[in-house]
Amino acid sequence: MNVDGTPYRTIWLAEDGWAVEIIDQTRLPHAFVTRRLETLEDAARAITDMQVRGAPLIGATAAYGMALAMHADASDGSLGHAYDTLLGTRPTAVNLRWALDGMRETLATLSANTRAGSAYAAAVRVCDEDVDICSAIGDHGLGLIRDIHDTKEESETVNVLTHCNAGWLATVDWGTALAPIYKAHDAGIPVHVWVDETRPRNQGASLTAWELGQHGVPHTLIVDNAGGHLMQHGKVDLCITGTDRTTASGDVCNKIGTYLKALAADDTGVPFYVALPSPTIDWTLDDGVRDIPIEERDGAEVTRMSGRTGDGSVTSVAIAPDDCPAANYAFDVTPARLVSGLITERGVCAATREGLSNLFSDDKAVTT
Amino acid sequence: MNVDGTPYRTIWLAEDGWAVEIIDQTRLPHAFVTRRLETLEDAARAITDMQVRGAPLIGATAAYGMALAMHADASDGSLGHAYDTLLGTRPTAVNLRWALDGMRETLATLSANTRAGSAYAAAVRVCDEDVDICSAIGDHGLGLIRDIHDTKEESETVNVLTHCNAGWLATVDWGTALAPIYKAHDAGIPVHVWVDETRPRNQGASLTAWELGQHGVPHTLIVDNAGGHLMQHGKVDLCITGTDRTTASGDVCNKIGTYLKALAADDTGVPFYVALPSPTIDWTLDDGVRDIPIEERDGAEVTRMSGRTGDGSVTSVAIAPDDCPAANYAFDVTPARLVSGLITERGVCAATREGLSNLFSDDKAVTT
Repeated sequence: MNVDGTPYRTIWLAEDGWAVEIIDQTRLPHAFVTRRLETLEDAARAITDMQVRGAPLIGATAAYGMALAMHADASDGSLGHAYDTLLGTRPTAVNLRWALDGMRETLATLSANTRAGSAYAAAVRVCDEDVDICSAIGDHGLGLIRDIHDTKEESETVNVLTHCNAGWLATVDWGTALAPIYKAHDAGIPVHVWVDETRPRNQGASLTAWELGQHGVPHTLIVDNAGGHLMQHGKVDLCITGTDRTTASGDVCNKIGTYLKALAADDTGVPFYVALPSPTIDWTLDDGVRDIPIEERDGAEVTRMSGRTGDGSVTSVAIAPDDCPAANYAFDVTPARLVSGLITERGVCAATREGLSNLFSDDKAVTT
Repeated sequence: MNVDGTPYRTIWLAEDGWAVEIIDQTRLPHAFVTRRLETLEDAARAITDMQVRGAPLIGATAAYGMALAMHADASDGSLGHAYDTLLGTRPTAVNLRWALDGMRETLATLSANTRAGSAYAAAVRVCDEDVDICSAIGDHGLGLIRDIHDTKEESETVNVLTHCNAGWLATVDWGTALAPIYKAHDAGIPVHVWVDETRPRNQGASLTAWELGQHGVPHTLIVDNAGGHLMQHGKVDLCITGTDRTTASGDVCNKIGTYLKALAADDTGVPFYVALPSPTIDWTLDDGVRDIPIEERDGAEVTRMSGRTGDGSVTSVAIAPDDCPAANYAFDVTPARLVSGLITERGVCAATREGLSNLFSDDKAVTT
């Protein structure tokens, strides 16, 4: 999508045709900085340090990391080392393993002198496939927004609430939850986004607000506490969030606080949709609340906050008493009964086993 | 309650018998600073600058402000000026007008030479009455906590979730929502509090966590997004919040985000109680969502955050893109159907017109 009027992806091949460039997302929203990755170690560090984040983008960066490793040394040893190094960067990311397994499978059978070229081609393919998936999610979600707009006056705005960042910055382009919004905006439908700040890491305030602003999509930042009030007062037409993991029955594991917004949507009659690329479906799980382990992160993310001071430097400040105990659960699970529908690259379906199976019966056969 | 082992109120007469002392709450949690108020202007500034906050404490400070004015000049002109000055500090605070009207009524009929003494006596009475009300709320709420503890092993903890600050810092002592918790803790019932940080002004992180810590009550700070997850997983036995305004039908207007916690409690079968001194009941209102106007505050409270830097200074940092539009609704309304009961100074009742009328039929006759 656009940054200051120029179209960008989150990761791309440098002009020299071998190095890789990324947007350093740790610097957002205060500075737009791109970084050049030249080695396997650069790619691994970009993932570890969260310069890139979001499951699809992590997968894409890992694929390019394999290509950079093959560019330097295409031996079997180098291949194995690159695989292990990249897999260790974010142990819980499903897309990471998926992308790396695919790359290793492709490259292992090739002779060393063809590996680098094939690795770059495969990495490009991983990226392009992600863009295609997200674009398709956007097209299907666009239908939902258009349907709502059709019930309003031509000039009336469709108000969408989202949580955390499931935008193009989490993918290679378009995003998941934000893809329908970008498609609607680009199609001339007046759309406005309520952006939850999404404590504790504030991906809404620092990433979603930034990317919507750069692309010119009207938006308003709110605290995570505010969405229920907005829905009670008719200020939200539709909620769309992403998901990190979706059970076969349609339960959705997403950034902490998603469940609260789904409850408010259910209580006030606001449609609550979840956008997902099908790789996030875990066909082995049924009851998400019971079965999905929830990552607990450092309490310092709760007791501290990072931001820009008056002199332009970015610093972390303490917002709680010294030694205040804090708990930091990263995700929660929204039961399928609260989800109006799932927006996938193959269409919109009910958040039920049947709904998902109808769209993905072939995938399911393969993975279960 | 205790601060570093010493019992405090939030406002008290200085040792010299005429000046007034307060805790400067704008400095919490990073520094414990008391301030001496010697003039009407000092008292007005303490309210305006939010060195004191919370409806009961604002009322108490205004009462003392009248006494300070009478101490300096007990003329009719001074009385009228003090009333107008203090009433203008926080135009929407109901307790403020109530305390000031009572003071003016008492003082207007007296001769000037007896006004100062009567004003101090009346201010002391306002404070003592608030302490009595909060203590009674605590006693009634203690029963709820004791009942839950009785269903557990002796050593098992009762986990209470609260939102914002309805502790002793918002009143003269004890607090409203936290009064039952202090009573339970002091009675030896093992109690642990999940403290919502309560963006945007973070009264949970800066005030509730501080006052619980100072009094020695076990607690854990969480982001506002986390409560639903905790309730889904049986980690919350009871929610207790305060309220700024309660309708005759039991709808509760409280800090933004309260509604989301009530929804989660309802969805997971966790009891959700609201503690209130009866002056917060607005007998003229029925449908809170429809009829209670919600204050919108400066968006900078959303886009910025204040905290302590490494060198100990307190500063404000920007956490959103420059010029990011932000909306800042200060309160939301929790419909009575989501409230398990109301904890008042006269006992616990259903959040219904009948429940409130049974307890307060005499008051209602007076105020409607």
